[in-house]
Amino acid sequence: MYFVGTQQILKELGLNNKIVTAEIFANRPGLLAGIDEALSLLEPLPVQVEALDEGTTITAKQVVMRITGRYGDFGLYETALLGILASSSGWASATREIVEAADPVPVYSFGARHVHPAVASVMDRAALVGGAKGASSILGARQANQMPSGTMPHALLLMAGDTVEAALAYDRIMPEDAPRVVLVDTFKDEAEEAIRVAEALKERLNAIRLDTPRERGGVTPELVREIRIRLAQKGINHVGIFVSGGLTPERIIALKEAGVTGFGVGSYIAAAPPLDMTMDLKAIDGQPVAKRGRIPGLTPSPDLKIRKWMPSGD
Amino acid sequence: MYFVGTQQILKELGLNNKIVTAEIFANRPGLLAGIDEALSLLEPLPVQVEALDEGTTITAKQVVMRITGRYGDFGLYETALLGILASSSGWASATREIVEAADPVPVYSFGARHVHPAVASVMDRAALVGGAKGASSILGARQANQMPSGTMPHALLLMAGDTVEAALAYDRIMPEDAPRVVLVDTFKDEAEEAIRVAEALKERLNAIRLDTPRERGGVTPELVREIRIRLAQKGINHVGIFVSGGLTPERIIALKEAGVTGFGVGSYIAAAPPLDMTMDLKAIDGQPVAKRGRIPGLTPSPDLKIRKWMPSGD
Amino acid sequence: MYFVGTQQILKELGLNNKIVTAEIFANRPGLLAGIDEALSLLEPLPVQVEALDEGTTITAKQVVMRITGRYGDFGLYETALLGILASSSGWASATREIVEAADPVPVYSFGARHVHPAVASVMDRAALVGGAKGASSILGARQANQMPSGTMPHALLLMAGDTVEAALAYDRIMPEDAPRVVLVDTFKDEAEEAIRVAEALKERLNAIRLDTPRERGGVTPELVREIRIRLAQKGINHVGIFVSGGLTPERIIALKEAGVTGFGVGSYIAAAPPLDMTMDLKAIDGQPVAKRGRIPGLTPSPDLKIRKWMPSGD
Amino acid sequence: MYFVGTQQILKELGLNNKIVTAEIFANRPGLLAGIDEALSLLEPLPVQVEALDEGTTITAKQVVMRITGRYGDFGLYETALLGILASSSGWASATREIVEAADPVPVYSFGARHVHPAVASVMDRAALVGGAKGASSILGARQANQMPSGTMPHALLLMAGDTVEAALAYDRIMPEDAPRVVLVDTFKDEAEEAIRVAEALKERLNAIRLDTPRERGGVTPELVREIRIRLAQKGINHVGIFVSGGLTPERIIALKEAGVTGFGVGSYIAAAPPLDMTMDLKAIDGQPVAKRGRIPGLTPSPDLKIRKWMPSGD
Amino acid sequence: MYFVGTQQILKELGLNNKIVTAEIFANRPGLLAGIDEALSLLEPLPVQVEALDEGTTITAKQVVMRITGRYGDFGLYETALLGILASSSGWASATREIVEAADPVPVYSFGARHVHPAVASVMDRAALVGGAKGASSILGARQANQMPSGTMPHALLLMAGDTVEAALAYDRIMPEDAPRVVLVDTFKDEAEEAIRVAEALKERLNAIRLDTPRERGGVTPELVREIRIRLAQKGINHVGIFVSGGLTPERIIALKEAGVTGFGVGSYIAAAPPLDMTMDLKAIDGQPVAKRGRIPGLTPSPDLKIRKWMPSGD
Amino acid sequence: MYFVGTQQILKELGLNNKIVTAEIFANRPGLLAGIDEALSLLEPLPVQVEALDEGTTITAKQVVMRITGRYGDFGLYETALLGILASSSGWASATREIVEAADPVPVYSFGARHVHPAVASVMDRAALVGGAKGASSILGARQANQMPSGTMPHALLLMAGDTVEAALAYDRIMPEDAPRVVLVDTFKDEAEEAIRVAEALKERLNAIRLDTPRERGGVTPELVREIRIRLAQKGINHVGIFVSGGLTPERIIALKEAGVTGFGVGSYIAAAPPLDMTMDLKAIDGQPVAKRGRIPGLTPSPDLKIRKWMPSGD
Repeated sequence: MYFVGTQQILKELGLNNKIVTAEIFANRPGLLAGIDEALSLLEPLPVQVEALDEGTTITAKQVVMRITGRYGDFGLYETALLGILASSSGWASATREIVEAADPVPVYSFGARHVHPAVASVMDRAALVGGAKGASSILGARQANQMPSGTMPHALLLMAGDTVEAALAYDRIMPEDAPRVVLVDTFKDEAEEAIRVAEALKERLNAIRLDTPRERGGVTPELVREIRIRLAQKGINHVGIFVSGGLTPERIIALKEAGVTGFGVGSYIAAAPPLDMTMDLKAIDGQPVAKRGRIPGLTPSPDLKIRKWMPSGD
Repeated sequence: MYFVGTQQILKELGLNNKIVTAEIFANRPGLLAGIDEALSLLEPLPVQVEALDEGTTITAKQVVMRITGRYGDFGLYETALLGILASSSGWASATREIVEAADPVPVYSFGARHVHPAVASVMDRAALVGGAKGASSILGARQANQMPSGTMPHALLLMAGDTVEAALAYDRIMPEDAPRVVLVDTFKDEAEEAIRVAEALKERLNAIRLDTPRERGGVTPELVREIRIRLAQKGINHVGIFVSGGLTPERIIALKEAGVTGFGVGSYIAAAPPLDMTMDLKAIDGQPVAKRGRIPGLTPSPDLKIRKWMPSGD
Repeated sequence: MYFVGTQQILKELGLNNKIVTAEIFANRPGLLAGIDEALSLLEPLPVQVEALDEGTTITAKQVVMRITGRYGDFGLYETALLGILASSSGWASATREIVEAADPVPVYSFGARHVHPAVASVMDRAALVGGAKGASSILGARQANQMPSGTMPHALLLMAGDTVEAALAYDRIMPEDAPRVVLVDTFKDEAEEAIRVAEALKERLNAIRLDTPRERGGVTPELVREIRIRLAQKGINHVGIFVSGGLTPERIIALKEAGVTGFGVGSYIAAAPPLDMTMDLKAIDGQPVAKRGRIPGLTPSPDLKIRKWMPSGD
Repeated sequence: MYFVGTQQILKELGLNNKIVTAEIFANRPGLLAGIDEALSLLEPLPVQVEALDEGTTITAKQVVMRITGRYGDFGLYETALLGILASSSGWASATREIVEAADPVPVYSFGARHVHPAVASVMDRAALVGGAKGASSILGARQANQMPSGTMPHALLLMAGDTVEAALAYDRIMPEDAPRVVLVDTFKDEAEEAIRVAEALKERLNAIRLDTPRERGGVTPELVREIRIRLAQKGINHVGIFVSGGLTPERIIALKEAGVTGFGVGSYIAAAPPLDMTMDLKAIDGQPVAKRGRIPGLTPSPDLKIRKWMPSGD
Repeated sequence: MYFVGTQQILKELGLNNKIVTAEIFANRPGLLAGIDEALSLLEPLPVQVEALDEGTTITAKQVVMRITGRYGDFGLYETALLGILASSSGWASATREIVEAADPVPVYSFGARHVHPAVASVMDRAALVGGAKGASSILGARQANQMPSGTMPHALLLMAGDTVEAALAYDRIMPEDAPRVVLVDTFKDEAEEAIRVAEALKERLNAIRLDTPRERGGVTPELVREIRIRLAQKGINHVGIFVSGGLTPERIIALKEAGVTGFGVGSYIAAAPPLDMTMDLKAIDGQPVAKRGRIPGLTPSPDLKIRKWMPSGD
Repeated sequence: MYFVGTQQILKELGLNNKIVTAEIFANRPGLLAGIDEALSLLEPLPVQVEALDEGTTITAKQVVMRITGRYGDFGLYETALLGILASSSGWASATREIVEAADPVPVYSFGARHVHPAVASVMDRAALVGGAKGASSILGARQANQMPSGTMPHALLLMAGDTVEAALAYDRIMPEDAPRVVLVDTFKDEAEEAIRVAEALKERLNAIRLDTPRERGGVTPELVREIRIRLAQKGINHVGIFVSGGLTPERIIALKEAGVTGFGVGSYIAAAPPLDMTMDLKAIDGQPVAKRGRIPGLTPSPDLKIRKWMPSGD
């Protein structure tokens, strides 16, 4: 409807064959993601595309993509393009913050439960661009034939009625090469349960996981430190401590000091605001244009690379 | 993988036929949306489902859905269910805030450019639950055979080179019943352009639209008031003033006073944080359970309604 | 030395028989305590004393005591008098704040470990003036032949190695009429341990006590509420919940709502700043005097009562 | 009562001969005092004691004392020990702050009127640990056969009716070697009175003292500077300026610049919050223990020194 | 130069006989002053003038004056008109704040020493519009043949060497009907000096004046109260207390409570920011005009009164 | 009245021939102005004057002027002297702040419309002391036979009805050497109008001026940058950009970066608070004196220069 309207108006005005150039830029600095998905969207269209690389650190107003062609051939896709870039870059930028705080401890995206399932794997891909080492989304794991982190939900433990019993069954069932990571905050004090699980699974236990609810004080650096020492006092030094639940860069810095060996981060990544993008028309048949408030003409952008040539017939 | 694991462990423990009850609740207050989509997801499963109505105002920790069945029959869908409810309720809650600020002036969702296209229509549906009167998403408009608001992009105006020329062409092309809403901030001062457009389209003009960029001070109440009076001094009293661009509840309250007749709201809705949801197992074969930090047993929830019965064979 | 000096100077100046009147007032509002101890100090002296009642709510600058006599007969005691009144009133005022927040739940002073043992019982007496229902100080308990609250230290539990075992031995040893209050935060999650202890001592258990360390999140309203409900789900409704550790009026208000039945308050009372007192000479042989910055003459003080007459020989 | 109970329970459990080790640590950093008094308390007991030196600067959680023996032999003294260390260290820490601000100008503790007389000399001793050069407490002065600072109360001046007259009598009475320090804020403007006193006592005057009440603006740096210069303009350069009244580290820094030669500090020292201490059982018969939230086993503490050996018979 | 230019350009454009209407409004709310002086400026010009009354309380953007005539006949005076209104209204508005705080105690403008002598009497007139009861400016007093308040400068007292001696000489010299107001903060403590002066001048003393410098704590409510009571204890109840020095509405409220009988306010009035004014052309030959950002045409202003008619010949 | 009184009292006391020295100092740091005008005021008097240079940067309490003579010969002028120095130094100090922010871009004082016309030229002279390059006051321009900045008021443009038409007339009328500076915010978007004016006046245009009202977002750095580039894209590189309206040091720093070539600053200079001055008597016949709170005797002031000798006859 709408776009047919735009096309018809251009034709009515005799402008439908004008070659225009549009630029897309972000309104604030961040980490660029979604470029590859955006290029897939543009692939079938008779336009030329320049873009930055996926994973580029960008400044406010830096041009991330430039499209040249007939407006009728790509204008329809403006909203989808901006949405892809804004949402993926928002998630990637937040992940980057987390990863920098956690460095060198690995970070896993646990955000799937906070976003619509249609974009869970998009978010997890953006988190990988931002430096995450893995992700928890079930569908993502299925596709990737990969073992998601954070296995064994609280529900399984509650049904088993005892963490050690559940952990032993889990150990019997799972393939040898799957990591054994066991939640230890379901029934008992975490330190007590961590020792019980470690003594039951012995060398087969890879890590315990702490996801202590806010009602029990959440996961604090002191708790991590105490569990690490109590395990060591039992001669258990090979077991990692994986932490999840309401993590932010500030909390991660303190927890890292205390000896955490892996972080599962959910809402900080999933609820990151989009890195808003704008598309501006900057030239028509090579002549600079711009609406009020913007600089007419192409923006000098030495880092853009041509990713797709205008089809020769056009 | 993962879930097969969980199923197998339950079987190993002889627990796979236990009937469990899980409750989903929100971690903060808000407006519930996504229930209908969640029920569609659960439709094929052999479980009983109770839920609140779409659009219910909820408190923190209020149970919004309760599922009873074998854990192996629905546990796989936990992440997807939570994601659907959290994202839709986040968008709906933010829209509600906007709509209450704008009341009685209508609000349209302009958020599509800030979210991934796979969820643009989900967001727009949530915005309608939150009280929006319409939405701008192109795909949504295609499906709905509806005229999206906010027509005539800046790009079309730039190509035409003059707002009045573009508006006249638009008027010639468009069906009689389509509203004529013309952007007046592309080339000239908004007040000057508003009068030019109104004098050109006369009674056929429904509204002008202001989307003044931040570089020109954005849209202020004073600008709206001045345009309204300058149009009236020319005898033009039938033309609405539609405003978009960086709107928040605070700005909307002041703009409404100045005489705005419609708001297009983008990032306030699209970037709303998810209304995070949690699913807890609360009973196994009728016995109350809960992990540490939570109250065992079903939560008294008089407003839940049975939306799907357990299939009789189960 | 010093005071002999003052006496000698007065004699040198021929002023040693002048009858003077001094007033003591507090520099900020609060709850007056220590009056009785102050009167004991003045008892042997040939002076007349007027004073407010112990436990009076006072305003800034209100006169709390007035002494008439020869300066040489009481000046030596100024520092001691002010110190008694300032420290006791400081402790009583802070207790009053706590008691008002906790009302009607009883408050016990647990402050002894924060003050020098020479004043622990003074502080506990001031806390009683402030409305506390009891106190924990060992020496105080010995004198009073009373059972101090907060029995069974963490050390005893650690030595026993198990809370239930210790609680059973305690129950066997203690006289029938002593209350059974058992700490449940030493080894295990508080909810788990509370149920174990309640099931072991049955009707003989009066209350559990929570003193959860900061490293485990402290005692939160959610923890109290959960324990209360988990006990009730086991049919245990007669067991109180006594809370101690870093309590302030703000925290107490929230904990009271959650169902706490007793509070043990330490540092908020013990570390209360003194309610500073000043003694000013206001008349000499009936003539008003005052140093710069103060009003000469007796301050109208209708609530003062004569507590000690000038010995007739003087 | 209570402790007999604990002892009996240990016996009932067959644990009364266990050798335990307890550690005492402060909950925040500060200056340690009270160790010597604590050691006196432990002297008669059959336990081994390690401790830091009186006056050590400590960090949060640093072990300040470690006691090894039968719990029944020292558990009774836990509250008293903690109270001694917490109160003395609180006073010493606050004095240290004051002394560092005043350095190199000497500081005297004037806090006696803010604390109970039973602990006034304890506080003054702690202030000396914190670096004070002397103290005003009357009883302390008596014991020490020392001339307390801050002599000549306002009351004496008011009775004399004139500062100069009182100062001359004081000078006639006092031993030759006692310092002459005269309060100059009782009747007249301090600058006027300072000159009168200095001209009357000439070379025999050691210092004037300013204790100007808040109602007359308190003692400001400008006042000190002006008095210093007005005295110098009269050729009086040997007279010190001693200041008291509501002093804090901030005020002291500015006053020191202005030429103060001595500070009398009261409520900043006396009202200092205790430096709270905790005693934890860390080993039983050599085996590490700890309650939840603490690290089991002895804390590495290289600065502890053995201050008392376990009696050989034990 | 400049304006000749404007006139010539209008002539060049054939516009010099156009009748225009200009409106003056304030940019924030306040108290209007300077209208009478502005009207005097416009008196000789061939224009019609409407204006609000001197002393009107105005809102932001309210029209305070409207001028109709040939632009060439009054444009030259725009800057002067705006300056007169802005400065006088700024002074009047600040005075109003002070007067409301002091009510019913009278306020005198002591601001002359803070402004250029060319505007000292303008400021004092504006202060009278704002509710001041009098003013101290020497020149103003000369013109008004009035006795300025705040007589007897510190310099006179310093030269006399004693306040009482100066006061007695002043009393001998001054006409019988002049009020005797004596500064009492030059040499001695104010309370001491107040009594000396009151006892020397007896019934002839009208008031003492306190202008205590910041270095002596300024004038506090406690000082005022103490002096009032000390005078009363001497039987002196007829002497007022006049206060000056750094007064603000907040300080005045507290001082009024303490018994001050007159305030001399300087920099709060003198340093008040101008109440900025703008003049806009709103009509040309009766047709509404305005620059961008302003509403064209006359602003409805029912309170404007015609203060000067257009000369009939024009 | 008043002063005659003072003189008569001195005579009554036999003090009228005493030679006194008074010092004037500022109460806070700033830039000294008004010295020359103050010296003119003192010129006819039989006194000796020392002073700092006009334009000296001064510290709080630094002596800026010292007067020696009979008090009766200059005391009358105290208020006027202080007012001259305080107001001029206040204006100069604020201008200095602006000039430092703008450096090296020139600043012009546009403050005349905010102050009373009697002091407009005083303020402009002070602004020149503070580093301004020129001023806009009409009267000042008349006296100086100089072309004021900021020519062509909005009113002239509104009457002409079109900026270009007015600019062309202005260009025809004005002498060849007068700069052509044209306001471009009256009717149209500033960028559009700037190009129209530049294309009309070509090389004869010196600068455009932006004074965009707050209702249109004020003048932002982005607006300046865009206009500069849009002009350059038309090949116009010789036209300056002059900005006025609500400028502060903060705004100026950002605007300077964007390419502004001149600033017109009004209320920041005009509404600057006076740099309050105090005059103290410091010696009488060579003997140091001072009121309470001040240091008696001459203040060491090496930078004072003798600007006027005592007439030899005195």
